[in-house]
Amino acid sequence: MSISVNSSDQVCKTGILHVDLLPATNDAHGGVIVDMKDTMDPRDFLTLLRASISQWREEGKKGVWIKLPIELVNLVETAVKEGFRYHHAEPHYLMLVYWIPEINNTLPANASHRVGIGAIVLNDKKEMLVVQEKSGRFQGTGVWKIPTGVVDEGEDIFAAAVREVKEETGIDAEFLEILAFRQAHKAFFEKSDLFFVCILRPLSFDIQKQELEIEAAKWIPLEDFAAQPVTQKHELFKYILEFCLEKLDREYAGFSPLPITSVFDHKLSYLYLNRQDMLCLSCSDQS
Amino acid sequence: MSISVNSSDQVCKTGILHVDLLPATNDAHGGVIVDMKDTMDPRDFLTLLRASISQWREEGKKGVWIKLPIELVNLVETAVKEGFRYHHAEPHYLMLVYWIPEINNTLPANASHRVGIGAIVLNDKKEMLVVQEKSGRFQGTGVWKIPTGVVDEGEDIFAAAVREVKEETGIDAEFLEILAFRQAHKAFFEKSDLFFVCILRPLSFDIQKQELEIEAAKWIPLEDFAAQPVTQKHELFKYILEFCLEKLDREYAGFSPLPITSVFDHKLSYLYLNRQDMLCLSCSDQS
Repeated sequence: MSISVNSSDQVCKTGILHVDLLPATNDAHGGVIVDMKDTMDPRDFLTLLRASISQWREEGKKGVWIKLPIELVNLVETAVKEGFRYHHAEPHYLMLVYWIPEINNTLPANASHRVGIGAIVLNDKKEMLVVQEKSGRFQGTGVWKIPTGVVDEGEDIFAAAVREVKEETGIDAEFLEILAFRQAHKAFFEKSDLFFVCILRPLSFDIQKQELEIEAAKWIPLEDFAAQPVTQKHELFKYILEFCLEKLDREYAGFSPLPITSVFDHKLSYLYLNRQDMLCLSCSDQS
Repeated sequence: MSISVNSSDQVCKTGILHVDLLPATNDAHGGVIVDMKDTMDPRDFLTLLRASISQWREEGKKGVWIKLPIELVNLVETAVKEGFRYHHAEPHYLMLVYWIPEINNTLPANASHRVGIGAIVLNDKKEMLVVQEKSGRFQGTGVWKIPTGVVDEGEDIFAAAVREVKEETGIDAEFLEILAFRQAHKAFFEKSDLFFVCILRPLSFDIQKQELEIEAAKWIPLEDFAAQPVTQKHELFKYILEFCLEKLDREYAGFSPLPITSVFDHKLSYLYLNRQDMLCLSCSDQS
């Protein structure tokens, strides 16, 4: 028997025609993930895509994910025209998704929040570490503010606070607690923002300011921080001052991180809780 | 004088040739945002894009953002080949970005975290509201867990906790506090996860479970929750139990939300803080 096959087809020993599918792995939720790596002609991609979807539909698969590196941008239009939608993108790739079943789209939501930190660093003289920034809202205003920054992808909040203080001012510091946090919406594009106000204990005191982003950095007496008009006007500044005062009086308990391990994947994460109020944690561990 | 112009060019009264640019608005950081709405031939788009970049470069612009609705997927390849990179994507659009200056790429980071909640709802009989889910890790295991869910885009944490409890169990509840939160990395794709453990006071008691996601829902005595093997094995379950016990003894203070308004855009946001320890807030407001 002779049949015509194109280069991507194969005839197995039983004589049944096997059309190649896109290289895919199963995910944990009944879907498949296609991690495209090699360049491909859009027409070949379309052929493989249609054959693959047809096969996955028969197998009862649900979500179909295609991760396209930016180098394979020539395949994006084909996928979208076959019904794929964007799920998320990073600078170097685009993730597309297609939901096969008729009902119950249970595709996970995309990341919705950016996470930032503000670092309150107090020395023994009741002075606070403050900076003036070269860009942003307070540029050129002479306003002294606490070091702030964005938590990097995959970074812990406590680590980001220590890093930002070091980067902006050269000061080494030890993380103590999260004193409060603010959730704001439509902070950039359509996304939201979680801003964690942290308190740190300084381990060094000689300031070496960063040149690129920081105009000036210094230790400022708390009364001088309080006397800034912005501290009375801006609620977040006002609370930052109050948290400092409460902490100096040792009457305010924030959340501090406790390492916990997942029984499922053994990955380490951190649970932030009020440790001061959870004193008998070790007792209850023995119960 | 006669010069040849294409349909998108214009000659003004002074006789100087004006090439049309892409429709753009300035952003607050020295960049421009192009919000493409109408269909366009990729070749026309390329002509406009090159003329626009050239113009913006002369004007000293920095980041160039192009928001392409998924209907304009035919323009993605052109933009990428001109040097644009993906910034982020949502199901209905792709945001591309191009950094003009030679140095100091200060483009803002993309959203990095998904935010979830777990709701501890306790009644006066020291019973906890628990569910069994139809999908996910505990599907079919008989494990009773607290209601959990993902915070929707633009939704406040306290609102998400109240909504999820209502959706899954039909119970009306009042938000009290965030007792703790966990940050985990590489939770889905490359993104991170913030999971807030909240405590709520029930306002109704008759359970009406949701059919789609929930297998069963009930009020369970705390000792029965404690007796589940998973509560001893799984650290997060163990802490959830401990938070319940601490709260019943009224010795554990979490963070509760306080509305604050930005002086810049007058937008409302919420600051979560230890209200129990910040009792003299009103006094210091008068200072």
